[in-house]
Amino acid sequence: MKRTALSALARRTAQPPISWLMQMALTRPKLISLAAGFTDNPSLPVRATRRLLNQLLASPRTGQPALQYGATAGDPELRQLTAAHLAQQDGARPNAAAYSPDRLILTHGSQQLLYMVTEALCDEGDIVLVEDPTYFVYLGITQSRGLRCRGVRLESDGVDLKHLEEVLESLKKRGELRRVKMLYLVSYFQNPTGATTSFEKKSAALALLRKYERAAGHPIYLLEDAAYRELRFAGEDIPSALTARGAADRVIYTSTFSKPFATGIRVGYGALPEPVLTAVTRIKGNHDFGTANLLQRLLARALATGEYDRHLVALRRRYGRKARVMAEAIREHFPSHVEWAMPEGGLYIWARLPKNARSGVESKLFKTGLAKGVVYVPGALCYCDDRARRKPDRELRLSFGAASEANLRAGIARLGHALAKTL
Amino acid sequence: MKRTALSALARRTAQPPISWLMQMALTRPKLISLAAGFTDNPSLPVRATRRLLNQLLASPRTGQPALQYGATAGDPELRQLTAAHLAQQDGARPNAAAYSPDRLILTHGSQQLLYMVTEALCDEGDIVLVEDPTYFVYLGITQSRGLRCRGVRLESDGVDLKHLEEVLESLKKRGELRRVKMLYLVSYFQNPTGATTSFEKKSAALALLRKYERAAGHPIYLLEDAAYRELRFAGEDIPSALTARGAADRVIYTSTFSKPFATGIRVGYGALPEPVLTAVTRIKGNHDFGTANLLQRLLARALATGEYDRHLVALRRRYGRKARVMAEAIREHFPSHVEWAMPEGGLYIWARLPKNARSGVESKLFKTGLAKGVVYVPGALCYCDDRARRKPDRELRLSFGAASEANLRAGIARLGHALAKTL
Repeated sequence: MKRTALSALARRTAQPPISWLMQMALTRPKLISLAAGFTDNPSLPVRATRRLLNQLLASPRTGQPALQYGATAGDPELRQLTAAHLAQQDGARPNAAAYSPDRLILTHGSQQLLYMVTEALCDEGDIVLVEDPTYFVYLGITQSRGLRCRGVRLESDGVDLKHLEEVLESLKKRGELRRVKMLYLVSYFQNPTGATTSFEKKSAALALLRKYERAAGHPIYLLEDAAYRELRFAGEDIPSALTARGAADRVIYTSTFSKPFATGIRVGYGALPEPVLTAVTRIKGNHDFGTANLLQRLLARALATGEYDRHLVALRRRYGRKARVMAEAIREHFPSHVEWAMPEGGLYIWARLPKNARSGVESKLFKTGLAKGVVYVPGALCYCDDRARRKPDRELRLSFGAASEANLRAGIARLGHALAKTL
Repeated sequence: MKRTALSALARRTAQPPISWLMQMALTRPKLISLAAGFTDNPSLPVRATRRLLNQLLASPRTGQPALQYGATAGDPELRQLTAAHLAQQDGARPNAAAYSPDRLILTHGSQQLLYMVTEALCDEGDIVLVEDPTYFVYLGITQSRGLRCRGVRLESDGVDLKHLEEVLESLKKRGELRRVKMLYLVSYFQNPTGATTSFEKKSAALALLRKYERAAGHPIYLLEDAAYRELRFAGEDIPSALTARGAADRVIYTSTFSKPFATGIRVGYGALPEPVLTAVTRIKGNHDFGTANLLQRLLARALATGEYDRHLVALRRRYGRKARVMAEAIREHFPSHVEWAMPEGGLYIWARLPKNARSGVESKLFKTGLAKGVVYVPGALCYCDDRARRKPDRELRLSFGAASEANLRAGIARLGHALAKTL
């Protein structure tokens, strides 16, 4: 048999770029991984989850619905609680139209929702505008589906609006605006840079997209991925793009309960405008016709009883502390000409080496770090393929999520030695 | 804005055919639904699940891994237990190559696996051979993805092999064999007909596919969907196609723990040959990078402690009883010229009206039944679009899964009156 039966999608779908890093971490137990996006093990709410599940399964009345199929869009009570939770974060009235439970869908993690939104909007060859750099698993989706990405330069408070306009303008000139379906922003403590988008930039970006819609001939959506929003340990929350002018029929907001509560309980959610909501709900009908009810009922109870909020307080304190531990170690061990910034939340610190230095998997730094027993995510993996610029290759994503405080110190020290040796 | 930004896939994705039936059942509480594929509420293992979760979450050692992210292909212990479970069902040596845990993937229900296998193998315009009739949610997948289906006549012991050969031959003559990627069989207590495929037919179908591969120029897979296999309440289990000659690199086997244990705990699984396994695992990395660990650890414990097997004994007894209740009511209330057969497992009885009678949503029977307060799934919904034949429209899928015994009797009685009135 010469030919394969695999689809074009399957042939395009690459090995996830860090899967070999993850594999290595499993086989070399002494390796300190600052690469994994896993959350902090000791922080996981084992006792709270046990308590909630005991309540939920104490009687057939509450237990049976948790063990039965449910609606494709999600458990009605959890949709209501989620809508209220989201309205509260945005400082909106709980009955505001943008936060109607009818606009909500619950998914098997927010990754599933990103996948389905992309399926709903993009045909092969379509264009997604992404932050430069961006969440690399999202790049995996675009690559597998044969989409093209254009990177928009990222500043410490969100995308460079001037560059966004230049990109849109150049696409317009080339007649490709009709292929542009959305701008994807990871707007809180971005993966990988830790940068948070200001409200002003979200609003301005949305207005820009609207401006180019006429030439595109169809809506251009703003996909706001707020996965890390609740992991804030400093500063004040920023309203989502849902509160921006003109958001009602253009902003697709996605977030998750997995990271703020427990990553083993995969429940993501989104607030979506029509016709995207109906399309995504139908697509979900084909994917799995609804997220596991046990997980949804568990989260509904966590929200309703206040366990969720209580856990979040502790979690924020913990990640704030771990971020400070990593930052102190960086100050102590990294050469002073390595640039980095302290994030206000999330799981990542982003570091930039001086010009001419390299951080990629083939670099001396990466190999020296590996020999010393530490790995990070090379920044180049977080940049889309975009011929308009060269891929930067002198950055590091350093996660303080999974490693213990001792390992954060030791890992950064090892990396500091590798830097001293190679810079 | 004139045009939509929706993708071709989204524009093709239809409302699931029975969603309005489901909706109606919610708004008319006195309506008896023989349509829903929900499982039996009182049978759900509330106490067993509580016991298992209490054990699992009793200590951080076992609790934390259940609340953390895991591997994309699934929890290693559950993959091992599942492989052993499957080998046991097939009467194979536990270390037989076909049942290696390395060939297994765990998914968010087996529906997700059907979706991803189809993504991995089929491009728009490709052809899937399906049973005529078949599982209508699978038809939703093919329709949304722009695939073409060819129906193969279904007999009481599986597809009509002569017809399968005719279909393959006609596709060969038209030069379309290169678009044929797989034959999809729901091989145990099929949804919707309750028919079970004999081992001889699985083997012969696989051999036929192999015979046409040369002309196709690529492998043609046998996708065996065994979702109902463990819901057997009479007769003896039949080995899967994995045990057939030539299966090793051609049979994709999918099944689920959701239906035999609890539908609110969505964990499906499959045994896949390369290169399909790698493709599907990568696609899963983009969908959700792994099924919720809490569900997987729970099922691993259910299997390891014997709770799963104990529950299954009770469940089989219960469904066997409900099937008999429905069958007795049919004998009592249906005209004798309505054909039907008693299944040996699963959730469905399939009934066929005399020639010239109609069962579709626009039929007098369906409307009369609805007026009397009973709904069923019209058989026509379970037939793919295939111009080679007219869609039969005189069959009914009757589910004994969700309704109580009293409602099964009352529902069948109402339907019997509607039949008497309309035939």
